[in-house]
This record gives sequence, C-alpha cells and structure tokens, in this order.
Amino acid sequence: MSVTSTNPVSGAQRVLDIAEATDADVLAVTELARSVVADYSRRPLEWRAEMLRAMADELEGDAESLVATAAEETALPLARLQGELRRTAFQLRFFADVVTDGAFLGASIDHATDSPMGPLPDLRRMRVPLGVVAVFGSSNFPFAFSVPGGDTASALAAGCPVVVKAHPAHPATSAATFAALERGARRCDAPEGTLSLVFGFDAGVALVEAPAVSAASFTGSVRAGRALWERANARTVPIPFYGELGAANPLVVTRAAALERGVEIGGGLAGSMTLGAGQFCTKPGLFFVPTGAGGDALVATAVSALDDLDGFTMLSAGIAENYRVATRSISTVEGVRALVHSALGHAAQTSAQLFEVDAVTFGAPGAGTLREECFGPLALVVRYASEEELVTALETSEPALTFSLFATVNDPDAPSLLDVGSRHAGRVIVNGFPTGVGVSWSMQHGGPWPSTTSSATTSVGAAAIERWLRPVAYQTVPDDLLPDALRESNPLDIPRRVDGQLQV
Amino acid sequence: MSVTSTNPVSGAQRVLDIAEATDADVLAVTELARSVVADYSRRPLEWRAEMLRAMADELEGDAESLVATAAEETALPLARLQGELRRTAFQLRFFADVVTDGAFLGASIDHATDSPMGPLPDLRRMRVPLGVVAVFGSSNFPFAFSVPGGDTASALAAGCPVVVKAHPAHPATSAATFAALERGARRCDAPEGTLSLVFGFDAGVALVEAPAVSAASFTGSVRAGRALWERANARTVPIPFYGELGAANPLVVTRAAALERGVEIGGGLAGSMTLGAGQFCTKPGLFFVPTGAGGDALVATAVSALDDLDGFTMLSAGIAENYRVATRSISTVEGVRALVHSALGHAAQTSAQLFEVDAVTFGAPGAGTLREECFGPLALVVRYASEEELVTALETSEPALTFSLFATVNDPDAPSLLDVGSRHAGRVIVNGFPTGVGVSWSMQHGGPWPSTTSSATTSVGAAAIERWLRPVAYQTVPDDLLPDALRESNPLDIPRRVDGQLQV
Repeated sequence: MSVTSTNPVSGAQRVLDIAEATDADVLAVTELARSVVADYSRRPLEWRAEMLRAMADELEGDAESLVATAAEETALPLARLQGELRRTAFQLRFFADVVTDGAFLGASIDHATDSPMGPLPDLRRMRVPLGVVAVFGSSNFPFAFSVPGGDTASALAAGCPVVVKAHPAHPATSAATFAALERGARRCDAPEGTLSLVFGFDAGVALVEAPAVSAASFTGSVRAGRALWERANARTVPIPFYGELGAANPLVVTRAAALERGVEIGGGLAGSMTLGAGQFCTKPGLFFVPTGAGGDALVATAVSALDDLDGFTMLSAGIAENYRVATRSISTVEGVRALVHSALGHAAQTSAQLFEVDAVTFGAPGAGTLREECFGPLALVVRYASEEELVTALETSEPALTFSLFATVNDPDAPSLLDVGSRHAGRVIVNGFPTGVGVSWSMQHGGPWPSTTSSATTSVGAAAIERWLRPVAYQTVPDDLLPDALRESNPLDIPRRVDGQLQV
Repeated sequence: MSVTSTNPVSGAQRVLDIAEATDADVLAVTELARSVVADYSRRPLEWRAEMLRAMADELEGDAESLVATAAEETALPLARLQGELRRTAFQLRFFADVVTDGAFLGASIDHATDSPMGPLPDLRRMRVPLGVVAVFGSSNFPFAFSVPGGDTASALAAGCPVVVKAHPAHPATSAATFAALERGARRCDAPEGTLSLVFGFDAGVALVEAPAVSAASFTGSVRAGRALWERANARTVPIPFYGELGAANPLVVTRAAALERGVEIGGGLAGSMTLGAGQFCTKPGLFFVPTGAGGDALVATAVSALDDLDGFTMLSAGIAENYRVATRSISTVEGVRALVHSALGHAAQTSAQLFEVDAVTFGAPGAGTLREECFGPLALVVRYASEEELVTALETSEPALTFSLFATVNDPDAPSLLDVGSRHAGRVIVNGFPTGVGVSWSMQHGGPWPSTTSSATTSVGAAAIERWLRPVAYQTVPDDLLPDALRESNPLDIPRRVDGQLQV
C-alpha cells in the first residue's frame, strides 16, 4: 500500500512514491541493521561524532525545503518549524559532544588488589552498545522528536544502528529528513544499514517484534505506548522499550503568588497551554489555583486571553477528533464548568478550551477522566480552598513529566509543594512554564509511570544515550585485548574511575 | 502457618516461632515502609553511611552464631560461610563508601545560558530514591545474596526503605541476620519500618503487587523470576523488577590453550563447577573444548578430579531433586555421553556430573535442554573440531552472566572469541574462572536476557545502587529550595557536572 500525505488545513491528500513496509521488509531492514552492528559500533568515537555533525549540516543545508514540507503536513507555523529544525541540528551536534566527552561509557578500572574478601583480580567495566534500536517518530515534533530527533541522535551516538518508523502525520517530512541524514551518513562512509526508515502501522508492530531489534523508543499516547510496551515484554527475548507517553502536567499557583501576580500568571498560562496548539507532552494541563480574589483574577485573565485566540489547526483530523472526544468527556463530568465557549470545530480545526472544577470534586474516585492527559489546547483549572485540599488533590493526580510551581519569595507553601512535585514528576519548575524542553546535560524528560514506561531514563538531554547501552566487565583481560576505553594508557582520554577515584 | 527450618544433611525439621505473612501483613509492612520514605531518604548521606557500617558491625559481632545457624540450614562449609559473612559486612561498608562518594547522585548543573535554541534556563539534575524496595533473598548465598546482601545494602544506600522476603531454605538465618541489621538500624535511630522481613511464598507474590512497593529485586531461577517479573509488569502501576536469573555460563578453551596446559585447566574446571556444590549463578556450565590430544587430556583430568570427589549435600532436598531431574533430562538427549558415573543420590544428597557432546549436536534445534542452566555440580563439555564450529555453537548458546576464555599469549583466536563473549555476557574473563564475584566499583553481575531481566544493571558492585534511583531536574528553583546536592556551593562536596564539565 502506498503512503499518503495529508494537508491538515485543506484536507488535501497526495499519494507519495513510498510503499508501506511488509513484515518481510521489516525483517530484511532490521537484519541489515544487525549486520552492521559490529562495523558501526567499532568506529572511533571521533568518527561517530563527525557523522552526527554531518547529519546536522545536511539538515540545515536543506532547511528551507524541509520546513516547507513540514508546514504543509503539520500546519505548524514556519517560525516554529524553523526553530525546531535549528534545535534538531543542535541536538545532533550536542550528542557529538556527548560522544567525544566519553563519560557516557562509564569506564571504571579496579586494579588487582587485596580485600577483606581475599585477593581481587583486575576488573574493568564500561558500557557497550545494545544493538539495533527501533525509533517511533512522534506526531507533534516533525523534526525534534521524529526521524532526525533525540531518540535517533542518542542511539546513533551510543553506537547503535537505528530503524525509524515514520509517523503517518508527516510522511513526506519523514522521508525528506531521512534523506538528509542519509546524505550525512554517506559523506562519512557509514555502513549501509546504519539508519533505515519504514512506513506503516503494521510495520511498527513488526519492528517491535523483529528478532534483530534490541531496544525501542516511542513518544506518543499512553494507549499506543502501552500496547507496544506489552509486545516488547511478550517477545521470546524481551527488549527494553522506552515509552514517553505524555501527562496531564500539573501547574500550581500558591495563594501568595496568586495575590501577588495572578493576572501575569493567568496570561502566561493561556500562552503555555496553547503553544503548538497544546500538542506538547509538557503542556500544563491542570492549573491548581486558590479560591478567592487572586485566583479569580488569574482565571479571568486566562479566560479573556483564550477568548481572544483564533481557532487552531491540529496536526491531523484524527488528533483533532480525539481532542473533541476528550473535551466532551471532560465537560460532562459532574461539577465541571466550561470557562470558554468556542466551537469545537471539524476536521483538523478546533479551539482552545478551559474548564474549572473544585479540588474536592477533582480528587473524587469517579473523576478519573479529569486526571488524564488531553492532547491539545485544553486545560482544567482546579480551585482549592486550603493547602490541605491542594495537597490531597495533587496526590490524587497521576505522576507527570513536569510539575510547575508559581510561588513568591519565601513562600511558606513552596517547600512542601516542591516535595510533592519531585515525587510526582521528572522535572520541577519554579516560576516558569514547562513547555520548553532544552537539550542539555541536565535535562530530564521522563517521569514516573504513566508519564514514561521507565522513570530511570530520559528521552531528552545527554543522559538519553544511556538507554542504548549495557555494562560489560572485563576480568584479567590482557591490555592489548581490552577495548580502548579500558586500556591502561587511556588512549581515548576519557573520564574514568580508577581504583575508586574519579579521574577527569 | 508457622515457618519451618530444615537441616538438609539430616532432613530434620524444626518449627520456628515465626508466622508466614498474610496479604494483610504484607500490606501493613509495605505501607509502614512507605510512611518512612520521606524521613529515611532525607537523612544526611553521612548518616546513611553510618547506619550501613553499624549493620556491618552487628553482623560481624554475631558472626559465630550466624555462621552456625546458616551451616545447619544450608550444609555449606563453615569456612565458606565465614568468608561469605566477611564479604557481606564488607559489602555494607563498601556501599557506605559509595554513598559518601556521592557520584551515584549524578548531580549536574547547567547555569542559564544562550544557545542556538534560544535562552536556556538554569537547570539542575540529580537522582532521587524510588521509594520502597522489595528484595527476594536467594537460596545459595544465605548472607551475601539474602537478607543482609547486596540488594538490601544497595537499596538502603540509595535511600530506599526495604522489605525483604526470606528464602524458605534458610529462615532461621534470615531471621537472625535481620535481627543484626535491625540492631544496627536502631543504634542509629533509623525510622521504624526502614527494614522489614516477611516469610512465605504467598507473601512474595503479595509483595510484588503491593501498591506501596516501587521496585523489586530477585535472585533465583528463570521460572520464578519470570513469573514475578510478569506480575510486576501487570500491576496498575508497573514497577521495575530486577531479576538475576542465572545462566549456563560458557567457558571456552582455545586449541592453543588446550595444547599448552590442558591438564591444568581441566583440574581448575572441576574445582570451579563444584564450588559450593555448583550452586553459584556464575558456575561455568558449558565447557567448549577442542577435539584432539590437548582437549582429551583436559577432559580426562577433569573427569579424574570429579571421580575423586565425595558427594554433595545440596541446599535443600527440593534443589537436589530439581538437579536430578535436569541431569536425567540432559543425559537422555541423543549424542550426549556421561563422563562420570556417580549415583545421583536421594533427599539433599547428590554428586557431580559431567557430560560430553559434539558442537554440532549442541547447536541443533532439538537440543535446547543442553543450553539451559542446570543449578548444581554439573557441566557439559562441548567438543569442537574447528573455530567455525565453536563460534556457531557459542552463538546458539543463551546469553549469560559470564563468559570465560582460556587462551595463550598472542592466541590468534582470542580477539574474535572475546568479541563473541562481550556480546553474550555481562562479565568476560580471560584465563580465570567466573565463580568469584568481588564487590568493587567495576563489578558487573548481570547480562543479556535471560540471565537478567535488565541487562543495563548489575546486582553486585557500586552500580547496583543505580537500580533504586530516578533522575529529577530542577528548573529555575531558588538555591534555598534546592536539594543540597544541587546547591551552588556544593555543600555535600560531591562530584558534579557543571555546564558540561565534570568536576571531581
């Protein structure tokens, strides 16, 4: 079957000269990838870094065309897509730096010694690549979390060949970005099969089940992510499956902060929840706002800002339809009040929605719908009358990717709320919005279940590379048979732990 | 139901004054543990280290009695148990050092900066404890991998309260070691509920399913481990389950090494496979030996050494019975020859067994039984006629915890065999036996599926602590609200990455 590209604004479709992959295709592609594991993973770190940089160059070289293609398929504004492409190129170069830094190898050397357990032999440990990695592109970031995104970059950086499953919402963009990455790989003489791309729903299932695949990553809905995670676990040889499944990210405004600058925060909220038409996994979805004057002003400002907005074109008609279904489902929960009254639209068109509920109703057993993520420009204001009500409601919320706290200087409520936040989320923000996810050494993009399938990992930032590695210890292995990272002379010049002491 | 302690030598049983935990008991114990998460995890690192050291002291202070109790329940020799207790105390002190070293926190600070993605806010990342950890004691190391073992030590070191499920093969030892650890905890005023112990098969199941439990570890059989792993995944909120499930660890002798010192290696093999009656998860179970004179001499020496051995008392009659069943099952595979002819014994008594098969038969589809772990003093010699036959047979073997290679200096076969080994195991040994697992910074005890459920982790050595932590990033959080590990002045004096640079 041929792959179709749809313009969400017009609904126009065009058939691409690309076929969906059959099971046999997926098998062939993944076996090809496996056949180059040895060659690819053994290339010098410096070479690997160069290839990532070449890929970044090729993306930037083709920026104008890539952005135009993506704009047509996603309805995202040009400026946003240009920025996202810059970020994606930056991300590839950042992982090149992570590779040459070398700390990701976790090299550790214990020379032979005596111990209370008796003599201990020479033992050296480092991380090695897992093998072929399957990457599922996401819908909402056609560059940064799709074919050329962080999962691909971090897996290639780790020394793993990658097979990407393209997201159906932007197939032409997927093919074009893949072509750019491939040009970069070819410029560096990477082995054929280092990076591949497949299309089609069934191909995704086949990919998770392919014997040659050693690990997988996914960014998307809880339902699809859990289904694939279950398949990964049900394999004869289960594989790690890193699902980043989104969340109804809570944002808390303390009583003092609402009084001090409720209007300012309310305006910011409206902006953050509608950024990218709310199609961010870090979109704040739950606003915990105090009752009383400060909170009222905050909510009024948010409502007024949302009322002023035009409608949105979502990434696809399917995503818009899911959004409408979720919106209706929230609006029918008893005790929920709609604060804006825009038409829900049709096809890919829709509008921002804001609802309000009191904290006690929010935490009630029957109100589970309110605590789930709604993908799109919708948020729920939860009004609390006391800190106790607030904390109870927060403890009822599902763990999330982020937790944002708006507080004043020396706010008496801040320490306990930050504590709740760090227990329930992977990233905690004070006086800021969660919707920007920078690529850096300290980023954490992943939180407790259900926001991610593995809370120990991140899909953005330097540590994302750790998902694609496993440690191996080498005991009494002669120096000339050791991997370079563990040889006595440290030929790679990387940070290592030697006899328990970190050496930079 | 009361817990019974059995002496495997005599078969004598005594009823202990301990009741198996009901589901309600497990719920209560785990909820108590959860109630102290905040208190326990926030104690200073130095305090946590002191508590681990106090536990080590208490174990050593009670050594004579603990060893006597364990000897009665396990039939393991006194010298072995004394050594194991020393190792267990050393392990607790080692994790105290890991705690004060502080690198396990993975602290990283990115100050606010500009980037090609635009301005990036101040962002700081560290690892935080997961919560309550469930630990399943194993049968074969009543100290080092049981109540006071590495899983308990590493989880307490990470800042997680622990609930241990005692192994039924040594309940009195479990109770006595628990009492010693509890004395240590009490001496340091640890919160009540920091460490608990439950008994009973059903209690183990209830433990993995208890809502208050955030992670679990297990050392034991593939069957039991997989069943618990599946339950951990089937929870409403799945939890990480770290199963160390054993393996038929391959040991390869190159043609050159067999010619050079076949007799010496053959004697060593017999010793390694029967250490602790073969009840080690690192027991070498598959000996890949060349055909021809060198290999023949090696095998003859091993057979003669095994023939000279007395029988063994296994840890329990049940383990001995499983061993007999596995032995019979191996002996009936077509093409398999028995090399020693000792009686298989009855109750907990049995004897060492060595079988031989050619490499082609070993790799055949119908011979899967030969590639599985047999827990006990049994090994299978796989004779290969060429390096090609050897590599094919090795690729057919299941991934394992260890891979041992006996080679000569400048052995032409060594590099390719080490490569196979590092792909198929978590620890690779040259010219040594795999049965010693030292506690150190570089140890890796864990390999690809099915030897462990997560190849990215280890259950022995410093990195074992990583299983009980997850990262949290703090964005624009004022210094006085940050955890100590991330404050600008580095009050804990720990290694950190600052703006991308490692600082020791």
